[in-house]
Amino acid sequence: MKKSDVIRAVFHSLLQEAPNKVWQPQHEKGLGFAPTNIALCKYWGKRDIELNLPMTSSLSIALPDKGALTSVSLHDQSYDRIILNDQEVVRDSAFAVRTSQFLDLFRPQKTGYLQIDIKMNIPVAAGLASSACGFASLVSALNDLFDWKLKKQSLSILARLGSGSAARSFWNGFVEWYAGVRPDGMDSFGEPLAFEWPELCVGILTMSEVEKPISSREAMQRTVNSSLLYGSWPKKVAQDLAILKQAMQVTNFPLLGGTAESNALTMHATMLSSWPPVCYFMPETIAAMHKIWKSRKEGLELYFTQDAGPNLKLLFLEQDKEQVQQLFPSVDIVKVFE
Amino acid sequence: MKKSDVIRAVFHSLLQEAPNKVWQPQHEKGLGFAPTNIALCKYWGKRDIELNLPMTSSLSIALPDKGALTSVSLHDQSYDRIILNDQEVVRDSAFAVRTSQFLDLFRPQKTGYLQIDIKMNIPVAAGLASSACGFASLVSALNDLFDWKLKKQSLSILARLGSGSAARSFWNGFVEWYAGVRPDGMDSFGEPLAFEWPELCVGILTMSEVEKPISSREAMQRTVNSSLLYGSWPKKVAQDLAILKQAMQVTNFPLLGGTAESNALTMHATMLSSWPPVCYFMPETIAAMHKIWKSRKEGLELYFTQDAGPNLKLLFLEQDKEQVQQLFPSVDIVKVFE
Repeated sequence: MKKSDVIRAVFHSLLQEAPNKVWQPQHEKGLGFAPTNIALCKYWGKRDIELNLPMTSSLSIALPDKGALTSVSLHDQSYDRIILNDQEVVRDSAFAVRTSQFLDLFRPQKTGYLQIDIKMNIPVAAGLASSACGFASLVSALNDLFDWKLKKQSLSILARLGSGSAARSFWNGFVEWYAGVRPDGMDSFGEPLAFEWPELCVGILTMSEVEKPISSREAMQRTVNSSLLYGSWPKKVAQDLAILKQAMQVTNFPLLGGTAESNALTMHATMLSSWPPVCYFMPETIAAMHKIWKSRKEGLELYFTQDAGPNLKLLFLEQDKEQVQQLFPSVDIVKVFE
Repeated sequence: MKKSDVIRAVFHSLLQEAPNKVWQPQHEKGLGFAPTNIALCKYWGKRDIELNLPMTSSLSIALPDKGALTSVSLHDQSYDRIILNDQEVVRDSAFAVRTSQFLDLFRPQKTGYLQIDIKMNIPVAAGLASSACGFASLVSALNDLFDWKLKKQSLSILARLGSGSAARSFWNGFVEWYAGVRPDGMDSFGEPLAFEWPELCVGILTMSEVEKPISSREAMQRTVNSSLLYGSWPKKVAQDLAILKQAMQVTNFPLLGGTAESNALTMHATMLSSWPPVCYFMPETIAAMHKIWKSRKEGLELYFTQDAGPNLKLLFLEQDKEQVQQLFPSVDIVKVFE
């Protein structure tokens, strides 16, 4: 069975109730918002490239007021028109092609093109999970436009087909994305975890809003194919997932922060051991890390995580907010539970 | 059997011919020079801490005119007096204690203290293998002073007991240090490889001569004890050793350089995945790496390796010397075969 047929079968099994209304607008516009998410235990490596099925489960926190708001409507052109932050996206850009190919997975052949208007309040493709909240908000907007009435778990499966980590962008708070075991990916979706941690803060430390030199998609594949250390990654994830849940259960912040930091560094370690090497560290990234380690030695409970980009995301508790602001005056602080 | 007894047995079996002259000077002074060495395939992790027995074999090139010149003579004080680059070393410093403890392995109890004069033309403890050439030159000087007439292979075993990588500092050119399999380490020594590569250049790029925040000894142990990625390191070394020898055999410089760079990055990767993380990268280190990768994309055959310190060692061929100097005006270039 071809992968595109697997995807179509998945789609139709999710939409059982409304097979004939798949691509028929029920309103003029569909709207969807999705928060971006920061993984505390990373998604790094696929077991199925076309279905975006991950090698391992992963765990994230959402940033409730950072993300993407997408509006979609059918239009009568023979192409998708994408407007990102009020700027029309060039039709043969990688971003536009990827979005259209994603829509092609579901819509009737050569018809049903869309006008897509995306507003994001985070930098695009700079390691802040713009594609995660982008695809999640797009799928939510389609669900609204066509009135599919899908539950979030199903939306998570569909969004995953566009960008793996989009599977986690449908909820606030802590979310786990289950790797699942099925070849069709019907058991690989996000689910919210029943933990709240009102004191938890995330600080976004932007070193560079420049688009990254290598996409996370490509970097991930290169790691899986060429890093001899990658074989140990699933073991690391299994251990870290268990410890993170334990840390939430007993509200042990150093355990949560330290595990998240170690998980991120280990992901970057697998990239450094790839060939050609993949290095998202910039000089500013390393300078900030040393500053964090120094403050921690001096007693501040400050940890970080880093995704496929040069920026760091700081993890700390509200009580230390002022100290963190003194250390990094440009930090953008987000309260996770509010 | 206690480890100190194993070491004494090793020592006496090497000195079979002269058991009574072990610590009796045959001249007024003993002299020894040892070149520093740069590993192309790193030594990272011990299977026996006291005997400095490595988990894996390793492979280096010597820098023929960079290293340590050591002179030793017996003196009548009840402690070892160490002079490093014309400065007396404080008696209870880590360096002095480590050196005296090494000498205690061999000399008669509470007697035979030495005056040790070391001159090094590389920075100390900044990741330029100062302890490798330091211990190798000390053992050579002892061999001279006491007229042990040991061959280099035996000197390599003795120096290894002071600092693992000292086992490789007795020859010019390419040297392999065999991990060996014996518990007493009698088969864990260096041996020169019969390859010459006259065009090969090493460029020392000094970012910082500041002493490193964590010794390689400690960093190595932390990696072995806490990094989940370390389990894959021996596989990486086995692969890289085979490729490096292949590259020498067929004089394929990109293969040699790329393998050395990947090996170094993978070693640093295992450190990043330790807890607490070990990071010898400084902002300047990362900036230089990105500069090297950019030049390589533009066609320059320039690679690097990095040890337990922030400095990089560039690898290139003589034909590219001027381009490398333009790129890094402060580089200190060493021809390896001359």
